[in-house]
Amino acid sequence: MEAALESVVSRLESETGADIGAAIRHGVMSGGKRLRPILCTTAYRASGGGANGLIYPLAVSLELIHAYSLMHDDLPCMDDAELRRGCPTTHVDHGEDVTSRAGAALIPAAALQALSSAAQLECGPKGAIDVARELMEAAGAGGMIGGQWLDLEGEGECLGLDELNGLYRRKTGALLMASLVVGARAARGSDHVVEALRRYGASIGLAFQIADDVLDATQSAETLGKRPSDAELDKSTYVGLYGLEEARNRARAHVDDALEALSSGGIDAPALNSLALYVVERDK
Amino acid sequence: MEAALESVVSRLESETGADIGAAIRHGVMSGGKRLRPILCTTAYRASGGGANGLIYPLAVSLELIHAYSLMHDDLPCMDDAELRRGCPTTHVDHGEDVTSRAGAALIPAAALQALSSAAQLECGPKGAIDVARELMEAAGAGGMIGGQWLDLEGEGECLGLDELNGLYRRKTGALLMASLVVGARAARGSDHVVEALRRYGASIGLAFQIADDVLDATQSAETLGKRPSDAELDKSTYVGLYGLEEARNRARAHVDDALEALSSGGIDAPALNSLALYVVERDK
Repeated sequence: MEAALESVVSRLESETGADIGAAIRHGVMSGGKRLRPILCTTAYRASGGGANGLIYPLAVSLELIHAYSLMHDDLPCMDDAELRRGCPTTHVDHGEDVTSRAGAALIPAAALQALSSAAQLECGPKGAIDVARELMEAAGAGGMIGGQWLDLEGEGECLGLDELNGLYRRKTGALLMASLVVGARAARGSDHVVEALRRYGASIGLAFQIADDVLDATQSAETLGKRPSDAELDKSTYVGLYGLEEARNRARAHVDDALEALSSGGIDAPALNSLALYVVERDK
Repeated sequence: MEAALESVVSRLESETGADIGAAIRHGVMSGGKRLRPILCTTAYRASGGGANGLIYPLAVSLELIHAYSLMHDDLPCMDDAELRRGCPTTHVDHGEDVTSRAGAALIPAAALQALSSAAQLECGPKGAIDVARELMEAAGAGGMIGGQWLDLEGEGECLGLDELNGLYRRKTGALLMASLVVGARAARGSDHVVEALRRYGASIGLAFQIADDVLDATQSAETLGKRPSDAELDKSTYVGLYGLEEARNRARAHVDDALEALSSGGIDAPALNSLALYVVERDK
């Protein structure tokens, strides 16, 4: 996965000026769990896709969108965060203007990456359109970008459960769900399998974000690699609504839903079971 | 064209929160020449595309990218402009954070618009991939976004002709050229016609930006609908390099190149001739 990402970043560096290229490298290549491309690859194989590495160039398109979202989230006019993954955020090292441009450039880069790589897979050129649509819908106003805005707008507001779930489904869930659907569609998985993976993705998306609430409330900046900020930004969270113990229970209940979606879809992929558990058991 | 844009904006408004929707409406529906979708439509018809209105939903994808670029260009951390088309810029009315999100949301919206509408045209689903690639390449780091950065980076620098042309080709030329190629490819125009329109687009792209330099140096804010800012931002321009008269001559020479590209490509489309002339004769 890192090699596939390196290949995209090198190309982007050669296409653009040194400053934008350096900011893109900072945003994309500074570690991270690579959860979205791993979900994509796992869903692809669980849906009958080949065991070769042809899925990686498609899988990294999800990480490009994710990197864009973090670069813009951390900007001074957004969350104004200075630390991520234990390092200064991209705009701290490269400036606000460059980071804004570099982040935006990752969206067309992801679209191009998805279109060209999906056409090489089982879904063929015609299926590549559906794959790219899934990615762009998840990234756009109806998905992640809309969720990022709800997140910002919700600061200082007391959100109820439905509002919070709506926010989490878009801010975090949409791209996690798309990671699975993109992988399944690339392999020409059946509609039945695609829908089961969509349900799995929606459930781990909620579990992931609730686990984030728990981590923000319980872990140090040193462990997280970023400053816990929910309290400071006065964000509504599951921990705020229900307390730590019940937040953990609810995260785990969503993981159970995810596992149930797999078995009802007839999907026998131990890696997807492990990934669902990892989402709530991770320590950062 | 306005109806096709209204249809996209209404859909985006319904998909997203009120604030982002309002900023998108401000950025997209506040007038403008609609030059890029008009070029796309004209190139489509000149390449044998049908005379029905099916091209409009594709053509507006170019305007979405253009609107994104203006919304982000005007941000405080970029050109910090407060007036465009005679009205307050989007961030002045809607805030910097919303405008940044709303602008970014237009990129996936444009990709989706291009993918779904091109598949309905002569090029079919397979050709729709090439169409969307052309749009995303023009928008991305190697095209417009890279050019926007060169523009910002060039402030206070004394650029030579080659650097200035390189900047203009990316900042303005890439999307104008893509407007023509997208239209031609959607109609399944021959490679010969596509290449001629690409040359035409490159030439009017340079002419357009040189004409912008002339307008910035000679017109009032009232006529332009925005504050002339090249001198204030200490930008290199053709007027600065060569003076007004020679800048006008060079713009006109690029128009001649554009007209020559049409005739050498055997393209008999009076509207494209008129549009090339309009690019240098406009007063805003």
